[in-house]
Amino acid sequence: MKKGIIVQKFGGSSVANPEKLKNVAKRVAATRDEGYDVVVVVSAMGDTTDDILELAARITSNPHSREMDMLLSTGEQVSVALLAMALHEIGKEAISFTGWQVGIVSDSSHTRAKILDISTGRVKAELRRGRIVIVAGFQGVTLNQEITTLGRGGSDLTAVALAKVLGAKVCEIFTDVEGVYTADPRVVPDAKKLDNISYDEMLELASLGAQVMQARSMEVASKYNVPLHVRSSFSQAPGTMITKEVKAMEDVLVRGITANKNEAKVTVCDVPDKPGEAGKLFEELAKANINVDMIIQNVSRARATDISFTVPAGDLSKTEKVIEKAASLIGANGVKFDKNIAKLSVVGIGMRSHSGVAAKMFRTLASKRINIEMISTSEIKISCVIDRKDADEAVKSLHKAFELGRKPGK
Amino acid sequence: MKKGIIVQKFGGSSVANPEKLKNVAKRVAATRDEGYDVVVVVSAMGDTTDDILELAARITSNPHSREMDMLLSTGEQVSVALLAMALHEIGKEAISFTGWQVGIVSDSSHTRAKILDISTGRVKAELRRGRIVIVAGFQGVTLNQEITTLGRGGSDLTAVALAKVLGAKVCEIFTDVEGVYTADPRVVPDAKKLDNISYDEMLELASLGAQVMQARSMEVASKYNVPLHVRSSFSQAPGTMITKEVKAMEDVLVRGITANKNEAKVTVCDVPDKPGEAGKLFEELAKANINVDMIIQNVSRARATDISFTVPAGDLSKTEKVIEKAASLIGANGVKFDKNIAKLSVVGIGMRSHSGVAAKMFRTLASKRINIEMISTSEIKISCVIDRKDADEAVKSLHKAFELGRKPGK
Repeated sequence: MKKGIIVQKFGGSSVANPEKLKNVAKRVAATRDEGYDVVVVVSAMGDTTDDILELAARITSNPHSREMDMLLSTGEQVSVALLAMALHEIGKEAISFTGWQVGIVSDSSHTRAKILDISTGRVKAELRRGRIVIVAGFQGVTLNQEITTLGRGGSDLTAVALAKVLGAKVCEIFTDVEGVYTADPRVVPDAKKLDNISYDEMLELASLGAQVMQARSMEVASKYNVPLHVRSSFSQAPGTMITKEVKAMEDVLVRGITANKNEAKVTVCDVPDKPGEAGKLFEELAKANINVDMIIQNVSRARATDISFTVPAGDLSKTEKVIEKAASLIGANGVKFDKNIAKLSVVGIGMRSHSGVAAKMFRTLASKRINIEMISTSEIKISCVIDRKDADEAVKSLHKAFELGRKPGK
Repeated sequence: MKKGIIVQKFGGSSVANPEKLKNVAKRVAATRDEGYDVVVVVSAMGDTTDDILELAARITSNPHSREMDMLLSTGEQVSVALLAMALHEIGKEAISFTGWQVGIVSDSSHTRAKILDISTGRVKAELRRGRIVIVAGFQGVTLNQEITTLGRGGSDLTAVALAKVLGAKVCEIFTDVEGVYTADPRVVPDAKKLDNISYDEMLELASLGAQVMQARSMEVASKYNVPLHVRSSFSQAPGTMITKEVKAMEDVLVRGITANKNEAKVTVCDVPDKPGEAGKLFEELAKANINVDMIIQNVSRARATDISFTVPAGDLSKTEKVIEKAASLIGANGVKFDKNIAKLSVVGIGMRSHSGVAAKMFRTLASKRINIEMISTSEIKISCVIDRKDADEAVKSLHKAFELGRKPGK
């Protein structure tokens, strides 16, 4: 009797060399042996992508994005072929596919394409033949037959989207950690692995720097209700299930705490207090494709106000160019940049029905004399910008204050 | 005014690293600047294919050919993307394509597929837009969307086939030699570069080990009358034009001399002299996909005869298995193998209308006390199997006897 389809995704570090690929093959084979139909999505091997990028960099500092996709998509193609061979070697029927062979149709935004449609015919036909199907992650094809790539975390997206169109029971995301934790275990030694978490919580944690899954994949999983299982490539232990919210989840006030150290703060000083001036600033940033995160506007004094916002640290130099021009255009009085910040966040759907989380957070930080520079909140999270040097201490003390650690003996 | 299309093919050593790729880009750009529409075919970079094969070898000793093609075809995809970038970098419009994007449709004989059809729509459209079109050599796609590779010399084949369907003026094959020589210049220092040679002559030289172009590409070029120009990647000097036979070519008795050191001789002893027995031997070899080259049957003595033939040295171990079984089956008296042979050939369409070439060849070898073990002839060539250790001396003395060397001062 058929038990249904499981989609398994293995990242670059899980397939970094032939030995690791063989381990992945065993893992996949074991799932097949349990009676599931298995679709595997793999990323490029370890440093392959970096090696390819270095080759390109020796030729041009400004590669066309279409040609970058042509180049980058070879990495995953190598992985899928080798994984098929590794499965054949242990006696399993398996077949590999590129994105275009499966029919992962995307728009034409090269290097960050969006999936528009996935054909399931070929994959289903091969599953019916009893084969394990291996699909190259991260890549798609336009209706015009151009190869695209899906941007950062693209392989997760491939896996989640395939799980959706195939009606998979679960999409397993294999990684080098055991699951999703209440906090970064490297910072908080008694951080606890979560058995369950809701899409919304995970989405906040993902976009806040938990680095287990990209926000985009989470959004798709949430939208189509694809159950995710984040688990370790190196252990058999169950990881963390990410599903839609269930009643019991609300009993937990705070699910996890993160500190994102990859943002920078920008302050535009003395923005004239006229309607539309702030809008102009953010229009310019949007045009340059810069994702602004938190935005704070101070109370006006005289006829001007300071506006602060955060951007990804990687976008800072681009931001500097754009914002200095925009600021002088609207008659602001200069721009200040601060790279040494961290965005500290406390996340939990329990907050919706319980109050006092913010108060406890601020009280805890104050007790450690940690200054809060910016605050923003959503229904299920509270974020504060603090000095980066205080980030680890802040996470530790909040983790303790909200009693998220492992119970003794557990 | 349009000057027409030129197809240029660059092999792996011409694109071995970013610097060489940049040189290729300059070369291509120069041809474009002369007013030609340019289609470039490239192979995988230098050792890429070997590196990929090594990865596969660490996973399995017996890879499925479909997955090998999936794997190997990435090499050319990397080259085309990088060459496009190199052309962009020097201000040229260029676009790269894989085999499937161009629509190079092949049969499904993985790792040695035959081209069935090439669509020209996309290539012509891009040429009309003024772009240089770069096509991945060596690869095709089946009607069932499977990636195939075309086997050894596959990139030459891609170039010749594209030149044919596009009606190119010429197909330029860039290599690390200056052209086709009267003999291997490493063996015969005064070997002369040929300005012209006919397809038939080149076909004999190619299949006889001249290693400039694969026989298969030559056959296609000859069949469709595609003018070829074999020339150096590293110099501007004209190389050797390969065209259909013209009257003047017949004035040259011998065009070139080759020694193929990659064959081995097999002798089946005392084959019973009954009709059909020899046929059985070669049927078994054909079943095992072994290309038999020269075949000699000695005069019968008593009711048995010796049969000797040559096979590619790489097929010898496979041949041993097949032939020993077949020989005992038909009641032959054992099999002998000789790896230390060379096949010496003298080629020229002038032979058709002139006699005495064979006599001169045998006389020259005899004067050097070189023993002839087997002889075979065609309209335009004479081949002798000799001891491998005599090969270089034989080539030198024949080259001199037929007066093929450069005239003093040339």
